[in-house]
Amino acid sequence: MKAKACVLEEFGKPPAMREFDVVPLAAGEVRVRIAAACVCGSDVHISAGEDPRTPLPIILGHEGAGRVTELNGVVKDVFGRELREGDPVIWERGIFCKTCYYCASLKQPALCPNRRTYGISVGCAAPPHFQGTYAELIHLRAGTAFIKLREGDDFSVLAAASCSGATAAHTMEQARIRPGDSVMIIGPGPLGLFCAAFARASGAGRIIMVGKRYHGLRLELAQEIGADEILYSDEGSVQDRLALVKSWTNGLGANCVLDCAGRPSAMAEYLDAVAPYGSYILPGIAVPSGEWPVRPFESLARKNVRLQGVWVSDTGHLLSAVQLVQSGRFPFGKMITHKFHLHEAAAALQVMRDRSAIKAALTP
Amino acid sequence: MKAKACVLEEFGKPPAMREFDVVPLAAGEVRVRIAAACVCGSDVHISAGEDPRTPLPIILGHEGAGRVTELNGVVKDVFGRELREGDPVIWERGIFCKTCYYCASLKQPALCPNRRTYGISVGCAAPPHFQGTYAELIHLRAGTAFIKLREGDDFSVLAAASCSGATAAHTMEQARIRPGDSVMIIGPGPLGLFCAAFARASGAGRIIMVGKRYHGLRLELAQEIGADEILYSDEGSVQDRLALVKSWTNGLGANCVLDCAGRPSAMAEYLDAVAPYGSYILPGIAVPSGEWPVRPFESLARKNVRLQGVWVSDTGHLLSAVQLVQSGRFPFGKMITHKFHLHEAAAALQVMRDRSAIKAALTP
Amino acid sequence: MKAKACVLEEFGKPPAMREFDVVPLAAGEVRVRIAAACVCGSDVHISAGEDPRTPLPIILGHEGAGRVTELNGVVKDVFGRELREGDPVIWERGIFCKTCYYCASLKQPALCPNRRTYGISVGCAAPPHFQGTYAELIHLRAGTAFIKLREGDDFSVLAAASCSGATAAHTMEQARIRPGDSVMIIGPGPLGLFCAAFARASGAGRIIMVGKRYHGLRLELAQEIGADEILYSDEGSVQDRLALVKSWTNGLGANCVLDCAGRPSAMAEYLDAVAPYGSYILPGIAVPSGEWPVRPFESLARKNVRLQGVWVSDTGHLLSAVQLVQSGRFPFGKMITHKFHLHEAAAALQVMRDRSAIKAALTP
Amino acid sequence: MKAKACVLEEFGKPPAMREFDVVPLAAGEVRVRIAAACVCGSDVHISAGEDPRTPLPIILGHEGAGRVTELNGVVKDVFGRELREGDPVIWERGIFCKTCYYCASLKQPALCPNRRTYGISVGCAAPPHFQGTYAELIHLRAGTAFIKLREGDDFSVLAAASCSGATAAHTMEQARIRPGDSVMIIGPGPLGLFCAAFARASGAGRIIMVGKRYHGLRLELAQEIGADEILYSDEGSVQDRLALVKSWTNGLGANCVLDCAGRPSAMAEYLDAVAPYGSYILPGIAVPSGEWPVRPFESLARKNVRLQGVWVSDTGHLLSAVQLVQSGRFPFGKMITHKFHLHEAAAALQVMRDRSAIKAALTP
Repeated sequence: MKAKACVLEEFGKPPAMREFDVVPLAAGEVRVRIAAACVCGSDVHISAGEDPRTPLPIILGHEGAGRVTELNGVVKDVFGRELREGDPVIWERGIFCKTCYYCASLKQPALCPNRRTYGISVGCAAPPHFQGTYAELIHLRAGTAFIKLREGDDFSVLAAASCSGATAAHTMEQARIRPGDSVMIIGPGPLGLFCAAFARASGAGRIIMVGKRYHGLRLELAQEIGADEILYSDEGSVQDRLALVKSWTNGLGANCVLDCAGRPSAMAEYLDAVAPYGSYILPGIAVPSGEWPVRPFESLARKNVRLQGVWVSDTGHLLSAVQLVQSGRFPFGKMITHKFHLHEAAAALQVMRDRSAIKAALTP
Repeated sequence: MKAKACVLEEFGKPPAMREFDVVPLAAGEVRVRIAAACVCGSDVHISAGEDPRTPLPIILGHEGAGRVTELNGVVKDVFGRELREGDPVIWERGIFCKTCYYCASLKQPALCPNRRTYGISVGCAAPPHFQGTYAELIHLRAGTAFIKLREGDDFSVLAAASCSGATAAHTMEQARIRPGDSVMIIGPGPLGLFCAAFARASGAGRIIMVGKRYHGLRLELAQEIGADEILYSDEGSVQDRLALVKSWTNGLGANCVLDCAGRPSAMAEYLDAVAPYGSYILPGIAVPSGEWPVRPFESLARKNVRLQGVWVSDTGHLLSAVQLVQSGRFPFGKMITHKFHLHEAAAALQVMRDRSAIKAALTP
Repeated sequence: MKAKACVLEEFGKPPAMREFDVVPLAAGEVRVRIAAACVCGSDVHISAGEDPRTPLPIILGHEGAGRVTELNGVVKDVFGRELREGDPVIWERGIFCKTCYYCASLKQPALCPNRRTYGISVGCAAPPHFQGTYAELIHLRAGTAFIKLREGDDFSVLAAASCSGATAAHTMEQARIRPGDSVMIIGPGPLGLFCAAFARASGAGRIIMVGKRYHGLRLELAQEIGADEILYSDEGSVQDRLALVKSWTNGLGANCVLDCAGRPSAMAEYLDAVAPYGSYILPGIAVPSGEWPVRPFESLARKNVRLQGVWVSDTGHLLSAVQLVQSGRFPFGKMITHKFHLHEAAAALQVMRDRSAIKAALTP
Repeated sequence: MKAKACVLEEFGKPPAMREFDVVPLAAGEVRVRIAAACVCGSDVHISAGEDPRTPLPIILGHEGAGRVTELNGVVKDVFGRELREGDPVIWERGIFCKTCYYCASLKQPALCPNRRTYGISVGCAAPPHFQGTYAELIHLRAGTAFIKLREGDDFSVLAAASCSGATAAHTMEQARIRPGDSVMIIGPGPLGLFCAAFARASGAGRIIMVGKRYHGLRLELAQEIGADEILYSDEGSVQDRLALVKSWTNGLGANCVLDCAGRPSAMAEYLDAVAPYGSYILPGIAVPSGEWPVRPFESLARKNVRLQGVWVSDTGHLLSAVQLVQSGRFPFGKMITHKFHLHEAAAALQVMRDRSAIKAALTP
C-alpha cells in the first residue's frame, strides 16, 4: 500500500507531491489519516532553509489533526482513554526523551536536546517516511502523546492550536498574570490572537493589541476575541504610544507585554511600556535576529522588570490550547482565512509568506 | 550465565536466595552490578504484604547503586554523558510513561498511573527477572533515568539517598521555605534526617527535630547534621511542647512542619505548631492509617495554613539528593548503622522492623 | 453637626438608630457619605456575639461604598489619583500596621495582629464614632487604602464585592489554577458566586457548583455566571456524587475545590473529589466549628493534595474584586436580592440569617 | 540639647561635621544612638550628586545600627517585642506608604513611589534634622520597621547587612534557585559576598565567583564564605571563560547568574553563561548606565532564559539578612576592612571610592 505526501526536496523550491510505502506499525505506534494540516509561519522559514534542524527530503508540517486508522497494541491518550480506529485525535508534535536533565529534573521537555519534532527534524528518506502533516497520513511513533478530540471538533482550528495555540499557552504560563492585570500583545498573527484569547480567559484586565493600520482584519478579530484597545504601531511617535498605554492602565504601564512580533524594533520600542514589577515575554522569536539594545537601569533594574524568553511548548500546553478551543468561547474559526488541497501546499506557503492569510489550512 | 538474588516468595516469610538466568539486553537497556542496596522502611511493609502493588515472587529492593557491566546501544545519563562499562551509577527507581496527564501536562511523574517501580511493582517470575536491588545485578529497562556517580562516592549512602533522600528533596520542594524560616521535623529516621540536611542546606533558620528520649543516636546525628533544637515528644504535655516551639521561633510557631513520623498522633499534636501562613507537610505516610481529626477553623482557616501531601519522588528529586550527598557537607555515612551480606537480607529487614538500625545496607 | 448610624448595643438584640457628633478630620483622614452598605454573613454572627473581636456599642457594617464629602490634606487612591469631594470611592475594610512580621516580611497583611477592621473591631463609644458602614457616613482614618470608582458604578454591588468579592479573590490567589483546570465550588452564596465568576474569568475549564435543590435561584445565577454543571448535594449517595464529578472531569476529579459552605460535613464528603495534585481551599469558615476527620493517606499523601486555609483578604484582593465587577462581564446585580433603608437593618440581618436573601443592601 | 552629624552641603565636596538641635519625638517615634554606620557604594554616587533623589544639605548614611535612647509611646519590633531604652536595634531604611498599588496590591513596597529613605531622600535642613546614619543619633519616624538585635551582635556587620545584605536577600528571592543549582556571582564586593553567603545557605550547588586577579582579598573571602570556583574575568577570552563555566556545571552553564558588577560589559560577556531555563539577575545597577546589547534569540528565547531586574529591598529582606548574619555561619566580620571615626567620613568615602576597602564602617 502506498500513500501521498508533500515533500520538500530542496530549500527555496516548492514542495512536491510524492508517494511512499505505508509500512507496518511497531508496538505502541499509531497511524492517523490527516484531516487537516496547518501552515505555520516557521514552515516558511523551514522551506527557505533557515532552520538548522531540517534534513532533506522532508514531509513538511507539524500542525495537524485527524482520525486513527490503525494501532499496534493498546495506546491511551493523556486521560488514559484507549484510542480506537476512527477516533478523532491530536498529538504533541515533539517526542521528548524523559531521561535528560531538562525532561527529568527541570521538567521542561520543550528544552530536551533529544526532542524529535514531526515535520521539522525528521526526514522522509527512510521508512516509516510519513513523519510530517502535509500528507494523507502520519505514522506516529511510540512515545507520542495523544489527546482524543470530540466528534464535531473543527480539525483545522485544532491543527492551528497544536503549535500557535500551544506556544501561546506556554507564553501565558510564563506570563503568570494576576486577575485584573493589563496585558499588551504585539503582533496580531495566529500566536498573538491565541495569546489574546488566553489572556481574556485567564483573568486579564485591559487587553491591548498592537498592530498596523493595514492589519484591519486581524485587529477586528483581536477585538472580537477580547482586545479592549488597539494601538497602531505605525501612528504617532513612540512617546505618544507609550502615553496611550499609560492612559489605558491607570498610569502604570502594561503589567505584561507579550511580544509576538519577533521584530528587533518591537522590543526597543515597547520594553518601556511594561509597568514596574511587570514582564516582557518573548515567545515570537523563531530565528536568529541579531542584537537588540536594552537599557538595563531604566527598563529592568529600577522597575524590577522581567524579560523572559519562551521556547516552543509541550504536551501540557497543547492540552490547554485544545481545551481553550473546545470551550467554544472564541471565534478561532475566523483565523483560518485560507483553505487549500494538499497538492496546493506551495500556494498555502505563499499566502503565509506574504501575510495575506492569517492561517492557511491544507486538507487531503 | 546465572546470577543470584534475594527473593520474596510469600508475604510474611523471610526472603530466600535464588538463581536466575541473565538474559540479553534489549536496545537501550543497561546491566548494573549492585554495589550496595539499602533496606527501606517500606520494604518491611512490602514483605508483610501491606503494599497492594506487590506481585510475588519478587526481588525486593528499590534503593541501590552500582557499576555498569553491559549496555545495548548508546545510553546517556541526565547530563548527556554516555554510560560506559565500569561506570559507577545510580538510577531513578521508577519508570514513568511520559504521555499521561500527570507526566505530560502536570509534570508530576510521581503520580503517573503507569509508573513501574523496581523492587516494588515488578515481579521476577519472567525474564529479565532482575528487577530489584537485593541481587547481584539489576537489568535496567529502556526509559530508566541515570546519574553517573564519581569514583569514591559511597555506594551505600547513595543507595539510601535514592529513596529517602529523594523523598526528602520532594518534601523540601513542597515546603517552599524562605531564607530564615523555622523548620520543625517530626521523626529522626532516614527521611527525617535527610529532611534536616535539606533544610539546613536550603536556608532554614532554626531547625527543630522532634523525637523520643530513647532515640539518642538518631537525635545526636540530627544535631550533627544541623538541628538546633531537640523536642522530646515523650516529655511534658502537648501544651508545654507547643510553648517550647513558640519560644524558639520568635513566638510565631514553625514556618514549616515536616511530618516524617507517619503516626496519626503526630498530626493531631503538632498541626498547631505551625505559624500563621505556614505549612504542614506529610511525606511520611506510606500506608493507609485511618482518619485523623483536624480543626479547620483554628488550625487552617484562621491562620492561612497549608496541609500538604507528598507522594514519593522523581528523577529531579533523586538528582537533588545525590548532589546533597556529594556536597560532602553532611555526615550521612553515620546513618548506615548496619551492613549485611546479601544473603542476610532477612536480618537486615529485622533491624529495620525493630528500629534498632537507622538504615541497613546490603552488599553482595 | 450630627449624623445617624445603626448601632448594636447588646448582642442578640436588634441594632438601633442613634445620632453622633461628626468630629473634625485629622491629617490624612477622609469622610465618606455611604451610598450603600451590604450585610455580610458575618454580620449575623457578629450581632449574635459570636465574633470575639467585637466591642460594644458598635456601628455594624464592613461592606460599603460611597462619595467623599471631606478630606484633610492630600489623600490618594491606590493608583496615585488624588481624592476630591464628590468622588465615588471604595476602601479596604482593614487597616494594617505595615511594620509587623506579617505585613513587612511575609507581606500577608490579612494576618496582621494589629489589623483594625471597620464595623468589626472598632466600637463607636468614643469619637470619631463613625467606624462602620451601617451609617449615613464613615470617618476613615489615615492609612486606609482607597480605590476611586467610576461614575455609574453600582454602589451596592461594589459594597458586596468589598468583602465577599475580595475574599473570593484571595481564594483564587491561593487556588493557583492552571488554564483548563476544573473547579468545584461548594455553596452558592455570595462568596461561592464570586468564586464562580473569578474561576470563569481566570481560565477555569469546567466549573461545578454544589448546592441543594431548594437553592434554585442561587444555582440559576451560578449558571448565568458560568457554572457548567450543578451537583445537588441532597440527591444520591456520596459515591454517586463523586462519580458524577469524575465523569465531568476526564476521570480525574476536580483540580480545585473551593469550599464556601463552611459546614463540617462538606469537607468530609468532598475532599475526595479533589484530583491528584489538586487543592481543597477553605475560605468559608468564619467561626470555630469543631473537629473534622481527614484520611491523610488516601485524601492527601497518596494524591499529593493540598488542603489550604484562607483568612479574609487585603487591598490587592479588593482591587481584583472591584476590577472584576467593573469588567461588566458578570450579572452581579442579581445577587442583591433585597434592598432596605438604613433604619431597617434588623430586617436586612434577618433575611441574611434565614437565607431568604442572597445579599441584602442598605441605603441611607 | 544638641548632637553632631556629618553633613553633605555641596555635591562633590567632602561632608562636614555639624551640630543640630535634638527635637522631641512625636507619637510612635524612636531615637537611636548610632553604634555603627557603614558606607555604601551608593553613598559615593550620592556624594557626587549622581542620585536624583538627594536633597541638600543631607546627613548621609542609610546603613546603621545602634541602641534605643528614647521612645514616644509603645513601639514594637517585627516580632511584636516592645522596644525599650538601651535595646540594640536595626531598622528598615525605607518608610513606605502601605496604601499605593505597589504596597497594597503588588506587595512590593520597594517600588512604592512614596518611599522615603533615611540618608538618601530626606534632607536635614528642617527638624528633626537627624535623618541619616552618619551621625551620633537618628530620629526614626512612626512607620519605621524595627528588628531587635541580640546583645553581642556586631553593629558594624549588621549595619552593612542593612543595605547590601538586604539587597542580596531580595536578589536571592528573585533568583528562586532549586537545591543543587549552580550559581555564578559577578563582582566580589559587599553585595556579591552577601549573595555568595545566601547562595551557600540556600542550597546552591556549585558557586562560582567572578573577579579580577587583583581582587585577591575579596576572592579569598568569597572562598571562605563558600565559593567553589573563582573565574578571573581578566584572564583568557570570553569563550575560554564560558567554557570553564560549562566545565564546572555538567555542561549546562550556570542555573543562575547574579550580576553584582553593574558594569555594562558584564552582561554582554556573561549572559550566555546562563543554562537553559536559567536566570540572569541584575541587582547591581544603581545608576543609569546606557544601553547594553542583547541577542534575544540566542540568549533568551531559544533557552527560555529570564533576565530580571532587582530594585533595592524591603523589611522582609532586611530580616533575612539579619538572620543570616546572626546564624554565625559566615565570616562577615572580615568584610569590614576599614573603620573610621564619624568625623573621618570623607576618608571612609575615599576608600570605598578607590575600592581599597571592601566595606568601611564609621563609629561616633
